[in-house]
Amino acid sequence: MRATLMHGAGDVRVETIPDPALQEPTDAIVRVVAACVCGSDLHPYRSMASRDGGVQMGHEAVGIVEEIGSGVTGVTPGDLVIVPFAYQDNTCAFCRDGVQTSCEHGGFLSAAQAELLHVPQASGTLVPVPADADEALLPSLLTLSDVYLTGHHAAHTGRVSPGKTVTVIGDGAVGLSAVLASRELGAERIILMGRHQARTDLGREFGATDVVAERGAEGVAAVMDLTGGAGSHVVLEAVGHLPAYEQAYGVVRPGGVISRVGVPQYERAPIGFGSLFGKNATLTGGPAPVRAYIEAALPAVLEGRINPGRVFDRTLSLEEAPAAYRAMDSREALKVMLRP
Amino acid sequence: MRATLMHGAGDVRVETIPDPALQEPTDAIVRVVAACVCGSDLHPYRSMASRDGGVQMGHEAVGIVEEIGSGVTGVTPGDLVIVPFAYQDNTCAFCRDGVQTSCEHGGFLSAAQAELLHVPQASGTLVPVPADADEALLPSLLTLSDVYLTGHHAAHTGRVSPGKTVTVIGDGAVGLSAVLASRELGAERIILMGRHQARTDLGREFGATDVVAERGAEGVAAVMDLTGGAGSHVVLEAVGHLPAYEQAYGVVRPGGVISRVGVPQYERAPIGFGSLFGKNATLTGGPAPVRAYIEAALPAVLEGRINPGRVFDRTLSLEEAPAAYRAMDSREALKVMLRP
Repeated sequence: MRATLMHGAGDVRVETIPDPALQEPTDAIVRVVAACVCGSDLHPYRSMASRDGGVQMGHEAVGIVEEIGSGVTGVTPGDLVIVPFAYQDNTCAFCRDGVQTSCEHGGFLSAAQAELLHVPQASGTLVPVPADADEALLPSLLTLSDVYLTGHHAAHTGRVSPGKTVTVIGDGAVGLSAVLASRELGAERIILMGRHQARTDLGREFGATDVVAERGAEGVAAVMDLTGGAGSHVVLEAVGHLPAYEQAYGVVRPGGVISRVGVPQYERAPIGFGSLFGKNATLTGGPAPVRAYIEAALPAVLEGRINPGRVFDRTLSLEEAPAAYRAMDSREALKVMLRP
Repeated sequence: MRATLMHGAGDVRVETIPDPALQEPTDAIVRVVAACVCGSDLHPYRSMASRDGGVQMGHEAVGIVEEIGSGVTGVTPGDLVIVPFAYQDNTCAFCRDGVQTSCEHGGFLSAAQAELLHVPQASGTLVPVPADADEALLPSLLTLSDVYLTGHHAAHTGRVSPGKTVTVIGDGAVGLSAVLASRELGAERIILMGRHQARTDLGREFGATDVVAERGAEGVAAVMDLTGGAGSHVVLEAVGHLPAYEQAYGVVRPGGVISRVGVPQYERAPIGFGSLFGKNATLTGGPAPVRAYIEAALPAVLEGRINPGRVFDRTLSLEEAPAAYRAMDSREALKVMLRP
């Protein structure tokens, strides 16, 4: 099959490799209908050391079940399915707690930008959708494998609710998804911090009531000004770099919540009296257990009531994956869908 | 009046200074019936640079209202009152959010180890208790000015509830208070991390089901073992030093909560993928808005159903304040009450 491999920073290639095969009775093989490039794929694209043979890329997919192991229930070959970026048994104690990304038998997919995808723990992972779903819904269905529900996870763990002021840091696809999810959860005011107007324009369509283009201390001052000096009840951090986190504790209101879903590119950061502790701010978030949220989000997508797939502003063939990375790295494209 | 002043590390003196006076119509003067030394007073006791004239100490008190400003309502001279360690108007937006320690007109008391105490924002700060309260209740009433409700704040913001496993780090008076508060909130299992047996014995009486004396990696391993490898739903960190925080993220269960009430003696600490983010752990806590909790806690204390005042294992006169600091610094005493 054809698959996308990264050989080092800036070096993405589409190559022919052996088809994946069932390894455990709980596995499935899914024929990928649509995959995409994630903002988190850009971290290795910018920094990965060269590696012989390369590594397969991609963790978001909608596809058709090709083959299932003898122990797989709930899906059958031919089903159209959403493939969450993490696999899980969806039955262990952590899954029952709603933290499927910490499943005892779980892990992260990393081979979805390909024709065929090997999925462990298929019974707990794959979510079938109506086979006659309109082709136009495909982008939004694909967002349920990661990006929209990552934005939703931020808003959910940040306890966004009616009456709340929410600040979203980052106008990438996750940040815009967090705006849409905050609107769905009833936020009264949504301040989007971002400086790319095409993106913040989409953010406004998704529900942002204010846009702050400034960053750092100026950005913090602008949000404090918009909130009458009080700060934001909830801050959703969708970037992952330290300056974004610093903005987050700068604008969070006393007693408020910072929810992070941008994968932190740092380990140590301020959490003492001057940042979090003094104002009783809560820090939450993590890798989104999207499996926990798919069924609840599906009806709004299938009915067309929300259209999170609008974060895809370009569609390329799988063969064009290198161009997809380039376009996202240079910020020409917000998020690129790949069609094998 | 006589008052306790700290002139530098290890240098506490009781001296005669001018009586405090009303400065604003919203002030009150309280005659202190009982005060005490806080674990947080030991931080300057160990590190404060020498200062000419010294600084007054103490932020916990029960007393009798001596004098009130013209704008004070809700209390009158002669009332027996609890004085929370932070003062607040109890009406601003942050107070209404339950974050009284961030009150727009608030601040922290720092002169309670004295005969008389000047209290700003008296209407919003002082809580009257029945004047005929039994003298034997005095220690427990005094804990409502800080230590017990700081433990309660940890448990409350950590979302302790029936069925939860809670790990409390620290066997000081705040840690033991957090144990008692966790039991009151219905925790199923309470693991107390501490190595002073007299203290952990009191912890068991307060509700601890397990005691772990080991620290660091060994302590983490012991808690993981006790929880079948899953970790603790809630971790209450009642120390404030970095190793205690490191233990906290070591034992927190995926999706769990770390609640800090020990004043952090650090600013930067790990919060990235390997500590908090990867397992979707939540970090919360801060200076306890005890004013938010006093009325709810009072009945159990007045009825004698809980006795948080047992954290006081020594009572000294105000004149003996230097000995009180020495006894707590050397860990001879858990917590010392001072009677002017």
